[in-house]
Amino acid sequence: MSLEALFRPKSIAIIGASEKPGKIGYAIMKNLIDYGYEGKIYPVNVKGVEIEMNGRKFKSYKSILDIPDDVDMAVVVVPAKFVSQVVEECGKKGVKVLPIISSGFGELGEEGKKIERQLVEIANKYGMRILGPNIFGVVYTPAKMNATFGPTDVMPGNLALISQSGALGIALMGWTILEKVGLSAVVSVGNKSDIDDADLLEFFKTDDNTNAILIYMEGVKDGRRFMEVAKEVSLEKPIIIIKAGRSERGAKAAASHTGSLAGADKIYEAAFKQSGILRALTIGEAFDWARTLSNLPEPEGENLIILTNGGGIGVMATDAAEEEGLHLYDNLEDLKVFANHMPPFGSYKNPVDLTGMAGAEAYEGSIRDALANPNMHSIAVLYCQTAVLDPRDLAKIVIREYNESGRKKPLVVAIVGGIEAKEAIDMLNEEGIPAYPEPERAIKALAALYRWSRWKKIQRRE
Amino acid sequence: MSLEALFRPKSIAIIGASEKPGKIGYAIMKNLIDYGYEGKIYPVNVKGVEIEMNGRKFKSYKSILDIPDDVDMAVVVVPAKFVSQVVEECGKKGVKVLPIISSGFGELGEEGKKIERQLVEIANKYGMRILGPNIFGVVYTPAKMNATFGPTDVMPGNLALISQSGALGIALMGWTILEKVGLSAVVSVGNKSDIDDADLLEFFKTDDNTNAILIYMEGVKDGRRFMEVAKEVSLEKPIIIIKAGRSERGAKAAASHTGSLAGADKIYEAAFKQSGILRALTIGEAFDWARTLSNLPEPEGENLIILTNGGGIGVMATDAAEEEGLHLYDNLEDLKVFANHMPPFGSYKNPVDLTGMAGAEAYEGSIRDALANPNMHSIAVLYCQTAVLDPRDLAKIVIREYNESGRKKPLVVAIVGGIEAKEAIDMLNEEGIPAYPEPERAIKALAALYRWSRWKKIQRRE
Repeated sequence: MSLEALFRPKSIAIIGASEKPGKIGYAIMKNLIDYGYEGKIYPVNVKGVEIEMNGRKFKSYKSILDIPDDVDMAVVVVPAKFVSQVVEECGKKGVKVLPIISSGFGELGEEGKKIERQLVEIANKYGMRILGPNIFGVVYTPAKMNATFGPTDVMPGNLALISQSGALGIALMGWTILEKVGLSAVVSVGNKSDIDDADLLEFFKTDDNTNAILIYMEGVKDGRRFMEVAKEVSLEKPIIIIKAGRSERGAKAAASHTGSLAGADKIYEAAFKQSGILRALTIGEAFDWARTLSNLPEPEGENLIILTNGGGIGVMATDAAEEEGLHLYDNLEDLKVFANHMPPFGSYKNPVDLTGMAGAEAYEGSIRDALANPNMHSIAVLYCQTAVLDPRDLAKIVIREYNESGRKKPLVVAIVGGIEAKEAIDMLNEEGIPAYPEPERAIKALAALYRWSRWKKIQRRE
Repeated sequence: MSLEALFRPKSIAIIGASEKPGKIGYAIMKNLIDYGYEGKIYPVNVKGVEIEMNGRKFKSYKSILDIPDDVDMAVVVVPAKFVSQVVEECGKKGVKVLPIISSGFGELGEEGKKIERQLVEIANKYGMRILGPNIFGVVYTPAKMNATFGPTDVMPGNLALISQSGALGIALMGWTILEKVGLSAVVSVGNKSDIDDADLLEFFKTDDNTNAILIYMEGVKDGRRFMEVAKEVSLEKPIIIIKAGRSERGAKAAASHTGSLAGADKIYEAAFKQSGILRALTIGEAFDWARTLSNLPEPEGENLIILTNGGGIGVMATDAAEEEGLHLYDNLEDLKVFANHMPPFGSYKNPVDLTGMAGAEAYEGSIRDALANPNMHSIAVLYCQTAVLDPRDLAKIVIREYNESGRKKPLVVAIVGGIEAKEAIDMLNEEGIPAYPEPERAIKALAALYRWSRWKKIQRRE
C-alpha cells in the first residue's frame, strides 16, 4: 500500500491532543499549524477540551469516531495502554496511516514487542499502516506538514531524512535548520513495527521532491529486503547512511543499546557497498555529502576545475581531490581561457590561481567560462576571504552565474574566513548551492557524488 | 636577540600611517587603537598629516628620527622602493623590531630576494630584527596589541597562530573569531627574510601566555634548525602544523605557488613525526585540535570516560576512540558510581549512557564523580539536544563543575543539535572548555592531546 497518506494527508487527527503547552499532544498540533499545514486538523481528547492555539480555537472530539469527516492520518500520542483501542477505532474510522508517537512498547522488551505485533495485526485487518511506535513524528515540506514535536522551522529542500533514534533525529532536525540543509521529509521510524526503511525508500524513489535520502540507522530487521530495495533506489537517487558501531567496542555498546548484533558491521559494510549506499562515518560528513547529492546534477565526465584566489587553499583542495580519486582537467589549450581573468603572475594551470587580487570580475568571468565549456564537467570555486571582494558578493555572483547556466553540471563552493564568509556560505546553501567553510569538505562532497555516479554506470553496464 | 619587543613593545611607530580609511596605513593604526594597545603610538607620514581616529587626533612625524622618544617597534607600510631608507633610519633611531608589511620583494623573484638580504644586513648592523616583508602584521593579545590590517576583535586565549600565507592568515583570524578560538598571538611571517618559524617557536616556548602553537606552513628555509627547535619546543608545548602539498599533484601546485620543492612531502612528514609535531590535514582539524591542546592539561593516564544521553552518539564516540587508540575505562566497580545518576534502563558501562531522560542533575552528578575519581583520567561529555535539558544549561553545569575541580584533567564536550546547541558550544569555548558539534571531533581532539603526551613520555624515557 502506498505511503501517500503519510506525506500528503488531506486531514490529520491528533489523538491525545492537549490544551497544555509543554505536552507532546500540544506541541505536535502547534507545529502543524505554525508550519502552515493546509489540510484539516482534528484534535481528539477524551475530555473534549477546547484547545486554543495562536488565537484560533479548536473544538476537540472525544473519539476519532465522532469526527464528521474522513481522516487520512491519525497521530497517536495517548499512553501505551490505550493505544490498542485507539488503533481499533482508527481502523473503524477508515484512517489510512497511524504515526504512533507513544513509547512503552518493543523498546522495553519481549512483552512490548508482542503488543506491537498485535497493533500491526489490527492495522492490517483494516488496511492501515503504522509508523513507529516510539517516534517523534513525520515532516513533509512540500505539503507544509510538520507533525512532530521537534523544531518548527525546517528549511524546505530535496533531502529526505530518516532516523531510527528519536533523540538524535530531533537533534539532527535542529542541525539542518542551523546549517541550512534543505529537507523534503523527516521520518522518525522508531521501533519499525510496520513501516520500515525499505518502505520509505520505495516512496522516496518516485517522490519528485526528494533527490537524496539520508538514513541514521542502528539496525535493520529484514536485511535482505532492505538491501534489495536500497540497490533499486540507488540506481535512481543516492542513499547516505550513518551507522555507528564500526569498532569492536562500539559494536558492543550498540548491541547493548539497540539489541542489534555485535560484530555484524562487516556484513553491513559489504552490503552497503554492493547496494550503492554511501556510508558516512560522521554526522558532519553525512550532511556535507547530502548537501551536494540532494542539490546537484550528476557530472557528465571526470574533468574537475578548481578556481581559487589563494594558492594555499588551492593546494589543499588538490590534495583532497587526488586522495579522493578526482581528476583535475589538464588540457592547457582549454585552460588558457582563464588567463583572461588573472594578473600575469596568476596560474591558469589547474588548480586555477586567480591570485589574491581576484575580485568580482575575475570570479564572474572564470566561473562563466568553466560553466560554458563542455569539456569541464565539475567545478569547485574556492575563496579565501580578502579585502578585495566581500564573500557575500561572491555568493551573489555564484548564484547568478549558476542559475543562468541552468545548473547543468555540479558546482561546489568553499569560503574560508570569518562572519562574512559564514553569511556567504549560508546564502549559497539557502539557494541549494553546496557551500562549505573548508576546501577539503567541498571536494569530498563532490567526490561522494562521483562515487555514486560511477557505481551507477558500472551497474548499468553489467 | 629576544623577540620581546615584537610582542610587548612599549611604543610603536607606523611608518606610512595614513589619514584615509581604506588604506593599510590607516587600518593598522585603527586596529592598534580599537584593540586597546596601551603603549605609545607614533604615526609617521612624509607629509606630516594629522590623523583623526575615533575622535582622537594624532600628530604625525615626517620621519621616525623626529620622534622625541624611544621606539621599540616600527610597522613599515611604505612602498617597496622606500623601505631600505626607512630601515636605515629605524636603525639610527634604535628601533628593536620592524614588521615590514610592504610587499614587492622576494615573492617577485631573485632581484627581490637580493633586496631582502640587503634589508636584513642593514638591520643586523643595528641589532634590529625584521618580520616579513610581505606580511599582514602581528597580534599579541596579552599586550592588547593588534598591529595588523586583519579583523579587530581577536578572542584572547592561549594559542599562538603563525601563518606563512597572508591571505589565508587573515581569513584564519576571521575564522578564530567566528569559531571562538582564543589566541595569544597571530604572526604573519611572509617572506621570512629574518625572523622565521624557529625564532618564533623559541619565543613561544617560554611565553606564559601560550600553551600551543599552530603553524600554517608552505615551506621552511633552514629545515634542520626548524626541526631541532620544534623538537625542543614540543617537549614543552604542542605544535600543530598545516602543510598542504601531500599528494603529487598538490605538491606540484604548491611548488609553482611557493617555489618550494615538489616531492619533499615525505621528508616533511617524517621530520614532523620525529619532532613531535602534530600534522593536521585540514584547517578544521587543526583548530579542533588546537582548542583542546591550548586549553587542557595533559592526562595523567589512559582511562577515558564517555558520558552521554544518547546511545547513538555514545557509539559514534566509542568508534572514534577505538580508531584513535584511546582506552575506555573498564573497571565496573569504579563505573558503578554512575548508576546513581540514571534510570534503571541506563548503562553505567563505559560509554556511560545516562539515557534520553538525563537532565541537569544526572549530568552534574556524573561529571562531578568522573572529575573526582583519580582512576578516571580524561572525560568526554556528550549531549544530544532534548527537551529535558537546555544545552545552555548543560554548558553552565560543565563550566561550573570543571572550574570547581581545578581543571586538573582533560575534559571535552560535544553537543549535537540546533541553534541552542551552537550557543552552548560557543559558551563553553569562550570559557576555554573545548566543545564541538559532533562526538567524533571531540574524541579526535582529545586523541591529539594523548598523541603529543605519549610522544613526550617516550622522549623522556630515551
